[in-house]
Amino acid sequence: MKGFFKVQTPDELYAKLGRFKPVSTEKVHIEESLGRVLSGEIVSPIPLPEFPRSTVDGFAVKAKDTYGVSEGNPALLRVVGEIPMGKVSDIEVGEGEAVKVATGGMVPKGADAVEMIEYAEWVDPQDIHVFKTLAPLENMAQVGEDVRAGETVLHQGIRIRPQEVGFMAGVGINEVPVFLRPRVAIISSGDEIVPVEHTTRPGQIRDINRYTISAMVREAEGIPSFLGIARDRFEEVKEKVESGLQESDMVVITGGSSVGTLDLTLDVLQSFPNTEILAHGVSVRPGKPTLLADIGGKPLMGLPGHPVSAMVIFHLFGKPILEILSGLAKPEADYGKKLKAKASRNIPSGPGREDYIRVKLEQRDGALWAHPVFGKSGAISSLVYAAGLLKIGVNEEGIEEGEEAEVILL
Amino acid sequence: MKGFFKVQTPDELYAKLGRFKPVSTEKVHIEESLGRVLSGEIVSPIPLPEFPRSTVDGFAVKAKDTYGVSEGNPALLRVVGEIPMGKVSDIEVGEGEAVKVATGGMVPKGADAVEMIEYAEWVDPQDIHVFKTLAPLENMAQVGEDVRAGETVLHQGIRIRPQEVGFMAGVGINEVPVFLRPRVAIISSGDEIVPVEHTTRPGQIRDINRYTISAMVREAEGIPSFLGIARDRFEEVKEKVESGLQESDMVVITGGSSVGTLDLTLDVLQSFPNTEILAHGVSVRPGKPTLLADIGGKPLMGLPGHPVSAMVIFHLFGKPILEILSGLAKPEADYGKKLKAKASRNIPSGPGREDYIRVKLEQRDGALWAHPVFGKSGAISSLVYAAGLLKIGVNEEGIEEGEEAEVILL
Repeated sequence: MKGFFKVQTPDELYAKLGRFKPVSTEKVHIEESLGRVLSGEIVSPIPLPEFPRSTVDGFAVKAKDTYGVSEGNPALLRVVGEIPMGKVSDIEVGEGEAVKVATGGMVPKGADAVEMIEYAEWVDPQDIHVFKTLAPLENMAQVGEDVRAGETVLHQGIRIRPQEVGFMAGVGINEVPVFLRPRVAIISSGDEIVPVEHTTRPGQIRDINRYTISAMVREAEGIPSFLGIARDRFEEVKEKVESGLQESDMVVITGGSSVGTLDLTLDVLQSFPNTEILAHGVSVRPGKPTLLADIGGKPLMGLPGHPVSAMVIFHLFGKPILEILSGLAKPEADYGKKLKAKASRNIPSGPGREDYIRVKLEQRDGALWAHPVFGKSGAISSLVYAAGLLKIGVNEEGIEEGEEAEVILL
Repeated sequence: MKGFFKVQTPDELYAKLGRFKPVSTEKVHIEESLGRVLSGEIVSPIPLPEFPRSTVDGFAVKAKDTYGVSEGNPALLRVVGEIPMGKVSDIEVGEGEAVKVATGGMVPKGADAVEMIEYAEWVDPQDIHVFKTLAPLENMAQVGEDVRAGETVLHQGIRIRPQEVGFMAGVGINEVPVFLRPRVAIISSGDEIVPVEHTTRPGQIRDINRYTISAMVREAEGIPSFLGIARDRFEEVKEKVESGLQESDMVVITGGSSVGTLDLTLDVLQSFPNTEILAHGVSVRPGKPTLLADIGGKPLMGLPGHPVSAMVIFHLFGKPILEILSGLAKPEADYGKKLKAKASRNIPSGPGREDYIRVKLEQRDGALWAHPVFGKSGAISSLVYAAGLLKIGVNEEGIEEGEEAEVILL
């Protein structure tokens, strides 16, 4: 057996990921931009609002006409018109005058504030009383108050959410520059692995990793493609890795969990002239026998064949690599991906490695509790029952009942 | 103006949503099942593991041959064979014998435990010393230990994650029964609204809601379709609502924010013979002028035209309705969708309504802080700068600096 000559801690490995780069860019219609990553700055071509807008239903007035008014001492104003929604109007508001406006409607020339309808009362078909003193610009938004023309609002490297799509629509941007979604070639390997459609013979197991890794790539907005199952033979593995490197931006090979398969993958990687091994083993359980290599700038991950280990490692390292290939400017915020929970019982761990314990979550007595999911052989079923992975740090020897720990949501 | 005759609190409105039902089901290949909702129970046709499996690299033995051994007092065992991965073997382990196995490999007949390779040492090409006493079944998984044949593992109404896809692959299930993704017809209305491709004239604004609501429907795994912009005329709104009800499982109409447009939508809804108005106004800010109706079993939402209000209301009520139409057995867990954060300053609020304040989030001094995002006219740009919505409850008059509140992630 070859030694784990480059066993890395997770932090050491994370520090090496910056070498990978996003591939290329394209333009898409904003309707197709949700979840994509911006590859350029978005500058607003117009101010927002584009015209002075009322923020309430009411009457556009000169603020000074309302100074000192009160319910007992209203001002009498002549209503000289109404601005229909979506229309421009030449009406100008003079002293002692008012113009009816709706929320979102244009505030006409001459007016510098809007009296809410609740503080106005018709005294005859042409005149109103207003009861409330307005400050200049009250209840209206000026041109460019939210966004100035030429202002950079959206920055390269953000992932586009519904509100970003809406913002671009609002300023008239139809097409948006985005990074290409990273293509990920997935290879299963191992003599015992058979396609899911096959009837298994004793000793064989169905190819789970193909599906879990593809699904995780999709969750991370990548494009998975499956290159098939390679037998544990050098030429077969090499051929598939070669075609993965040709067609895709990243290659993931899940190996049999046996040491032999891992060595075979390593031999294949080292047979490429431009391979740099970044990690041969990570100090993580489950998942220690993990390979990460840079082959001519493209990341290749060798994941343990064990489905749970493969998922944990892809979660910890594969997804961050995909974020980099996707062009994200910085790792996505952890909000919504990690949380704190209390261990419902003592959980032992060995020092010198990070431990990821599958847990269920339960809200009880105002606290969030993490219950370890048991399952000796650590089959995929244990992940079905799990809501997250509880992390026990590299220098901890376990956590005690009631102690708070970080949980990565699955 | 017609009164808000059915203003509902959020909880009152949530209590009414149970009347809506998922539409229909289909079968999809597991590869297409990610994010879909199971419409039936998944029963494992096989036990997992299917054969007795080793969970370590080592030697399959009879546990009792290791009783009392230690480093100073090893047992000598004859290695009678090796089980290659993926192969079945007729080898049987007798007393004083061992068979080499890899992690995941089959434990042969006669053996009831596996000595890890770390605790064994070759003494000659056919014999090993083992140093560690094993309990029966140690380091192996029995047939059906994780999942019994016939066991119901996945339940109707769950949303399928990568591990569920993997589990189904593992037990040989290719096709999976799922609920149809709900189709959502989206209608924009308002005389001032123009398509994003158009040059606006003063007083007009581009159709933002079409894009934000479509994107939120996609986020919730629904299928949006846009039916166009309806002018503020009864027949035009009615025609679009009719075609939405025909083609889709849910209709969302975003209105001009003016009272007139809201009334028009209400008139249209009431012109259908089988309309039940569930809410005419909700005690939420922003978003009070919200309509919810049941038209012959299909939900129709009338959202405020203001893009921020429309997004907040669709987040609070539209997404829960979509979850029900999707067939989810219970609301999805909040983990990852809501979190607690401390207000970075005093935020006032009126009693009698829930207030949703757009906030940025910042991790500082071991706590998560929520900073209100300002922007008087409440334009869509304020949501671009926001990471979430901080909730101020219906009976609170605001929250104080440093106080903890719930934040819904955007």
